[in-house]
Amino acid sequence: MSLKTAAALVIGNEILSGKVEEANLVVLARMLRPLGIRLRRVVMVEDVIDEIAREVQQLALTYDLVVTSGGVGPTHDDVTVEAVGRAFGAAVVTDPRLEKMIRAHYGERCTPGHLRMALVPDGCSLETTDDVAWPTIRLRNVWLLPGVPEIFQLKLQVLVENFGFAGDAFVTHAVYTKMDEGHLKPLLDTVVAQFPDVEVGSYPKWHHDSYTTKLTFDGQEPERVRAAHDAFVALLPEGEPQDFSE
Amino acid sequence: MSLKTAAALVIGNEILSGKVEEANLVVLARMLRPLGIRLRRVVMVEDVIDEIAREVQQLALTYDLVVTSGGVGPTHDDVTVEAVGRAFGAAVVTDPRLEKMIRAHYGERCTPGHLRMALVPDGCSLETTDDVAWPTIRLRNVWLLPGVPEIFQLKLQVLVENFGFAGDAFVTHAVYTKMDEGHLKPLLDTVVAQFPDVEVGSYPKWHHDSYTTKLTFDGQEPERVRAAHDAFVALLPEGEPQDFSE
Repeated sequence: MSLKTAAALVIGNEILSGKVEEANLVVLARMLRPLGIRLRRVVMVEDVIDEIAREVQQLALTYDLVVTSGGVGPTHDDVTVEAVGRAFGAAVVTDPRLEKMIRAHYGERCTPGHLRMALVPDGCSLETTDDVAWPTIRLRNVWLLPGVPEIFQLKLQVLVENFGFAGDAFVTHAVYTKMDEGHLKPLLDTVVAQFPDVEVGSYPKWHHDSYTTKLTFDGQEPERVRAAHDAFVALLPEGEPQDFSE
Repeated sequence: MSLKTAAALVIGNEILSGKVEEANLVVLARMLRPLGIRLRRVVMVEDVIDEIAREVQQLALTYDLVVTSGGVGPTHDDVTVEAVGRAFGAAVVTDPRLEKMIRAHYGERCTPGHLRMALVPDGCSLETTDDVAWPTIRLRNVWLLPGVPEIFQLKLQVLVENFGFAGDAFVTHAVYTKMDEGHLKPLLDTVVAQFPDVEVGSYPKWHHDSYTTKLTFDGQEPERVRAAHDAFVALLPEGEPQDFSE
């Protein structure tokens, strides 16, 4: 069984001030699961170079894949490129290929501001696919994605195609019951002890008409996940589970 | 000018696997701003006691206020109470007041599972308000809130009423323009240099009909924020900004 780990670093005062609602993490998390990659940690920080650099350095050492979201535009509050460079001791340089693309795109309207988007950490790779020709910056295991959700999702596809890794997908089964967690606990404990390789989750729903608690069974070995699910269902009293949906 | 800082720790495999979309952070961020409290860092981790304990310890030392979200129910994956105890070297004990409330609530149906919700880190405070009588656990500057959004929001009110702090609220002004960031950069740089005490943000909108970039001006001194906004608007070319809304 192969298992890869990932971490995400969300960058931007607009997220931490609540001005903009974060929207990329759930997309990233859901994209990684079928690839067998486990998102294990997320950190959100302000637009502060040293703080971003410190996080990138630590995350890159600890996890197989690091995805940053935000801070890659041309303005004063876009400091991700510089911070990632600092994390790896790489200078920030103008990439000739990016410069050419930017000049071609803006033509006579091109300003020094636009050309700041050609700045990259020295030694990085510029990743593309046939569908997404505008390069995505990657330095070692760190991928620099923009915070704007539409572009984040587009570039996520570049990551998926280029990461060159396909592990065992996580599979998941859910059971919905009208029992509360206090009553479910001994049943869950039995299954958790019996299936240490299956992740068992219990999620109460507040004020829901049709069910009280959702149980989930997750893992990378489909037969074990199914067996854990079945073992739990067999422990339920008569009449449970019912056929609920959210 | 008084300034307080906060950090949030979001706990739960369901968030990092994308099974549940995180919904509490934006509510927390927006609630803190009028109190003059700046949310400076967010960390999301899985249901792993040592990892949660380490985060709590670090965040509690660094920030004035720490809010945790998730992991406070009775099942095997609810480990926040134990982790917060470990962070401060406090044993986990049964609180008699909570036990009494739980027994009264469940009556004859009360199980050992339900009574697990009476476990608290030794030395904690149980915070309540007239409206929210069910106690919220606080250990020093760390508030333990549940992940279920409806209850999280309810308990946030307890925090607001009990935190006993009202600093200078952050104020914000926004400007919407049709200019892109490349063209705006020199104008923004001028204002940023002139108003180091005002936080200037620039947010491009992708595929939006009415505007291209939103600029924001934030700070705790209303006159300075207004002055920065006005200085920026004075730099704009004729016809900008227009009266856009999102």
